[in-house]
Amino acid sequence: MADLVVIGSVALDNIEGPAGTSGDILGGSATYACYAASFFARPRLVACVGKDFPVAARQALEERPIDLAGLATLDGPTFRWAGRYAPAFKTRETLSLDLGVFMQFNPKLDRPLPAGSILLLGNIDPDLQLKVLDQAGPAAFVAADTIDHWILNKREVLIKGLARTHLMFLNDEEARLLTGEDNLVKAGAAVRGMGPKIAVIKKGEHGALMFTERGLFAIPALPLDQFADPTGAGDVFAGTMLGVMAAKGAPDIAGYAAADPLLREAMAKATVMSSFAVAEFGVNRLRSLTPAQIESRLEALRALVRF
Amino acid sequence: MADLVVIGSVALDNIEGPAGTSGDILGGSATYACYAASFFARPRLVACVGKDFPVAARQALEERPIDLAGLATLDGPTFRWAGRYAPAFKTRETLSLDLGVFMQFNPKLDRPLPAGSILLLGNIDPDLQLKVLDQAGPAAFVAADTIDHWILNKREVLIKGLARTHLMFLNDEEARLLTGEDNLVKAGAAVRGMGPKIAVIKKGEHGALMFTERGLFAIPALPLDQFADPTGAGDVFAGTMLGVMAAKGAPDIAGYAAADPLLREAMAKATVMSSFAVAEFGVNRLRSLTPAQIESRLEALRALVRF
Repeated sequence: MADLVVIGSVALDNIEGPAGTSGDILGGSATYACYAASFFARPRLVACVGKDFPVAARQALEERPIDLAGLATLDGPTFRWAGRYAPAFKTRETLSLDLGVFMQFNPKLDRPLPAGSILLLGNIDPDLQLKVLDQAGPAAFVAADTIDHWILNKREVLIKGLARTHLMFLNDEEARLLTGEDNLVKAGAAVRGMGPKIAVIKKGEHGALMFTERGLFAIPALPLDQFADPTGAGDVFAGTMLGVMAAKGAPDIAGYAAADPLLREAMAKATVMSSFAVAEFGVNRLRSLTPAQIESRLEALRALVRF
Repeated sequence: MADLVVIGSVALDNIEGPAGTSGDILGGSATYACYAASFFARPRLVACVGKDFPVAARQALEERPIDLAGLATLDGPTFRWAGRYAPAFKTRETLSLDLGVFMQFNPKLDRPLPAGSILLLGNIDPDLQLKVLDQAGPAAFVAADTIDHWILNKREVLIKGLARTHLMFLNDEEARLLTGEDNLVKAGAAVRGMGPKIAVIKKGEHGALMFTERGLFAIPALPLDQFADPTGAGDVFAGTMLGVMAAKGAPDIAGYAAADPLLREAMAKATVMSSFAVAEFGVNRLRSLTPAQIESRLEALRALVRF
């Protein structure tokens, strides 16, 4: 099994939507990614929380095989986000955002990452992503995620990071915004032209596309009638995909980039894990999830697309 | 090979959009459906045109193995539609609509359809669809298509027809409008509750879903970088699916409804044919299409979804 290091946010979320309100719950890009990855590998979480971070939230992280040595506790409040989903989850509105201790976060890796290891730069300030890239050194396979906010406001830094990224996760609107291409085939090619050998474009309920040197892979989402909270679904997708890749491992960056069947299997499992994640608020559904349930839904996904 | 009877419109279209303007071209739901079906079966077209129907348009229909005996020429102008697609094909606006001879169209089948035959009620007035249903008798496998206009304005008649339909084609917005269910899994189930054992929900660039007694089937669309005209793509999808089913044939309605592998293969070929159809205006791309090209793109579709 290869090393998997995840940097991103650990947060406290307050979510309102068609399924009700969540109360104060554990969230954040690194939380979701590590939680999902931990079903396949043993991710190392690099993030920070404040001294107000609730015991129950820490316990939820400790339930899973996640290495929490890199989770710093800093003076100040934990990163907090409050959001509201419109009816039928058509849009999402940020009600409040308090970066808290992330204002002073200075992520530290102990040492450069060895060949064969995987680094996920979760959605945080691209300047922080670059800082971690510098520490990680040139040997790790680098995956990154972002959001429209950084594409609009830190485009140049983001593009610097992209040139050193091997797998980029974007949703369809972010891919269009980043590349200026409305057509997703052209957008995927344009993302690859910016550096990443692999571009994954997530389309929510419409599934996902992957662009590699071997061509395209398309996977539909599992049609769901239970849906409570899409928050973090993209992080679960990314975390699962990289967890599956780390579990199998590859000798180096080129080994991961060329592993087409592994990348497809990882996307399929990412689709399955995301379908579980959105069924309840936060990581609640993942807390009760079993390997047998994952396997069974993976079989359902195979049956769904078979022809 | 089973009989396939297609009723719908034959029209002259004028299309404006990101790829330019089409000029006066052959269109209509029955045209697209028969054109596509003719690559797999020998469809019988039941429709009408006016005396102004251009020789070139008729010749385009005659190029394909389509039985045109049911194409009536009536006094008056051919049905004409003009539409405009917004940038990136995000929306479609009808600029003008002249029903012409369709105002007086009284579709006639020579005799009831035998068991094993397939009837496609293309998008026309639900009252006309019912008239044809009455003539077709109870033995044929009935597929139907519609648009939001009829769901909004002839709901009761449409629902009467649905109770006698075995396969219903709807796009996602039509499915939501018809059933009042925003969630597509629930919408698909609700459509089936109205009569059709098979519900196909088309999602355009996001592929299609099929709901049957065996469960769900999901297929992504082929990601395309060539895209000129989405007009008729849904009719091509329906025509292909039924053409493939007719080519294989089944003894009776229950035989078609239970033929899960055949239905999936038919959806895959429908996906392929639609991907060709949208590459040029009207049926232009289908006019130059070869069986080898269809086979090759079907292989590409298999490779696209394999994991």
